[in-house]
Amino acid sequence: MAPSPLNIGLIGLGTVGSQVAERMLAWQSQLARRAGVELCLRRVLVRDIAKRRSVEIESDLMTADPDQLLDDPDIHVVVEVAGGDEPMRGYLERAIQAGKHVVTANKVVMAKHGPDLLDLAAQKNVDVYFEAAVGGGIPLISTFRTDLQANRIERLSAVINGTTNYVLGRMAAGGLSLDEAVREAQAAGFAEADPTDDVGGFDATYKLAILGSIAYEIKVRPDDIFREGIEGIEPVDFRYARELGYAIKLIAHTQRHPGRIEARVHPAMVPLDHPLAQVEGANNAVFVEGDLVGQVLLVGQGAGGRPTASAVVGDLIDLARSIRRPSFSFDDRVAVVPMGEVMTRAYYRIRVDDRAGVLAAIGQVYAEEGVSISSFIQKDAWVQERIAELVVTTHPSSEASLQRARARIAKLEPVHAVSSFLRVF
Amino acid sequence: MAPSPLNIGLIGLGTVGSQVAERMLAWQSQLARRAGVELCLRRVLVRDIAKRRSVEIESDLMTADPDQLLDDPDIHVVVEVAGGDEPMRGYLERAIQAGKHVVTANKVVMAKHGPDLLDLAAQKNVDVYFEAAVGGGIPLISTFRTDLQANRIERLSAVINGTTNYVLGRMAAGGLSLDEAVREAQAAGFAEADPTDDVGGFDATYKLAILGSIAYEIKVRPDDIFREGIEGIEPVDFRYARELGYAIKLIAHTQRHPGRIEARVHPAMVPLDHPLAQVEGANNAVFVEGDLVGQVLLVGQGAGGRPTASAVVGDLIDLARSIRRPSFSFDDRVAVVPMGEVMTRAYYRIRVDDRAGVLAAIGQVYAEEGVSISSFIQKDAWVQERIAELVVTTHPSSEASLQRARARIAKLEPVHAVSSFLRVF
Repeated sequence: MAPSPLNIGLIGLGTVGSQVAERMLAWQSQLARRAGVELCLRRVLVRDIAKRRSVEIESDLMTADPDQLLDDPDIHVVVEVAGGDEPMRGYLERAIQAGKHVVTANKVVMAKHGPDLLDLAAQKNVDVYFEAAVGGGIPLISTFRTDLQANRIERLSAVINGTTNYVLGRMAAGGLSLDEAVREAQAAGFAEADPTDDVGGFDATYKLAILGSIAYEIKVRPDDIFREGIEGIEPVDFRYARELGYAIKLIAHTQRHPGRIEARVHPAMVPLDHPLAQVEGANNAVFVEGDLVGQVLLVGQGAGGRPTASAVVGDLIDLARSIRRPSFSFDDRVAVVPMGEVMTRAYYRIRVDDRAGVLAAIGQVYAEEGVSISSFIQKDAWVQERIAELVVTTHPSSEASLQRARARIAKLEPVHAVSSFLRVF
Repeated sequence: MAPSPLNIGLIGLGTVGSQVAERMLAWQSQLARRAGVELCLRRVLVRDIAKRRSVEIESDLMTADPDQLLDDPDIHVVVEVAGGDEPMRGYLERAIQAGKHVVTANKVVMAKHGPDLLDLAAQKNVDVYFEAAVGGGIPLISTFRTDLQANRIERLSAVINGTTNYVLGRMAAGGLSLDEAVREAQAAGFAEADPTDDVGGFDATYKLAILGSIAYEIKVRPDDIFREGIEGIEPVDFRYARELGYAIKLIAHTQRHPGRIEARVHPAMVPLDHPLAQVEGANNAVFVEGDLVGQVLLVGQGAGGRPTASAVVGDLIDLARSIRRPSFSFDDRVAVVPMGEVMTRAYYRIRVDDRAGVLAAIGQVYAEEGVSISSFIQKDAWVQERIAELVVTTHPSSEASLQRARARIAKLEPVHAVSSFLRVF
């Protein structure tokens, strides 16, 4: 007998919420298999029911009345992706009080009130999952809560605000002023109309409060964290940074000291060979050091509807499993492709007699095998012996064609050997 | 009332096993708090009891008789860190048959027999955890099994064998032959006496079989995977690679096609700006693409006693929790450091009148505040106006001293402004 479904109440149907709803509706059977129980979207709370949306939700699932969701005893899990402090903090508190589990992407609520909500959840014996609150779909909270549990976390350094990273990147590369770069970020959809939250370092501070709390198991509040935004940086600083061998990044950093934690968010000069100096565009990256694991780097898209929905629905599956843990199951409908059919680019290094007609003969083989050439270098490697070395790279072709060409070229009369064959990634 | 402890039987007390045992013994109360139950080391199976070891284990816990561990009904979890195919496969099968949970770091057993063991575990209603079998302490298996569960995994590319990555790095940088580089890797402790498993790509193939099975939920056997080692690469190939804009890496790659999976391990030319081209030394890196999350990169030490023990003990805590899930708890003994006490390096950009005595006055302030100068650049920015720009970077000093210096310098008579102050990371 199948267990009764897990009923979900979703709060918010914006960029993230519509992706969450869409995946839940379109992937119903797959998610049920992975979760070990059916996940049923039972109610969706929005501010304006009449608004047109990209995802099709049955109209009787929608409500604008929070009580209809929070007071429904048949809803087991509240998924909150609306964002902002109140009323969301209050909604989540009510949900936990009522014995519902919570999955949230709300960084403000988790940074300011996370410890209180987690304490309350412990009393009520329910779970609060919040992977989506930091770093989009990059596995951060789960990494600290499970994988690194055997470690003492020594330090954590992160580029965790995509907007400022994009802005600083444009200032560095394009010589733009801060205002020009922010306007570009707004036009590209990476910055809000009011960019204060990002530019002032507030967003990064919320995220660091959450990561620090989980990494060190202490209550780190946003107000405990030193915060400085990127407002003071001028284009000339990027020139000096380059001269000195640095990139300028907004860094969120925490470090363990005996009995205490250092926690700060501010722009910093980062050595160019440090992994955080290489984080490009709106990406996020977290660099962690544990006493056993050493250094681990996690990089990915830190925001956006789809990456955040990945984390929310991942949490939902994890939560469902913790209620009823399914065993691992394999999908029998998928097979491995024979290597001959795999398409790759290739690099050939070919030793030949340096005489007329060689190139034509080799080119002919590639043409007959349907392999198109991308680049071609000839080196007179051993001039006295009249031996040359040809380096050929190709466009994508099937492994079978690449190998047939390799064998046929090796047999050509003026060819000494195909000395090297490497696939190009 | 405290629940009865979870009794652990450990198989193997080598590089990994001794780190696992040490952490379990030295961190008993901390692990118990995180796991929600006491983890008790009840039996350790080794080949030779008499051998001297770095970790102190009570002699009556040690045995050389597998039955003493596998037939003990009071052992709930078998942790296997001995490695190799038989007899370990048989031991794990017996453990599962007897209703014991399994945590293993054994990539050979999991690659060749993982699907069978997981099927058996499902029948017996026990769990098999194997995070440590791939990529040391980098969170890989857990990322696929939980965080990315809402995704269809499109592709996965990895540098997953540290030995070959070290060897290829030495060939590229030092112009060494393969044999020379392998001998260097052996001397540095990165390669076995018989390097075939690494150099031939077998190790990477085992790991890709495990990752592919979990990522796509299909049974990928090592024999299904195309394998080519790095034996054929010559020093000259690195020169051509550089000319063409590539690095040479041993790549493990899988990709989804309709109803099929492509899976291959071989050396490849990787574009220099690809994250996998930048993986240095014995590090591992896995680059995943999911349909929701986009691209995620995970990097860290892929082998070694401590990183692998981090994954093994992490699995053990996760397993213990799935049996009795504890709520999140905070540690009240740790506080946040006031920013003034935080030590950082700093960068100052200072506009000054270009006249005698300025440097001395500024240097005097730094000296009085105990701030030691690391580098110093002077630019004649506005020659007509006799204004110069000084760029100073410092050695680590307390934030309070750096700020006092900043304020005092700003007030010096020939100083127009401290135009920029950035902490150096």
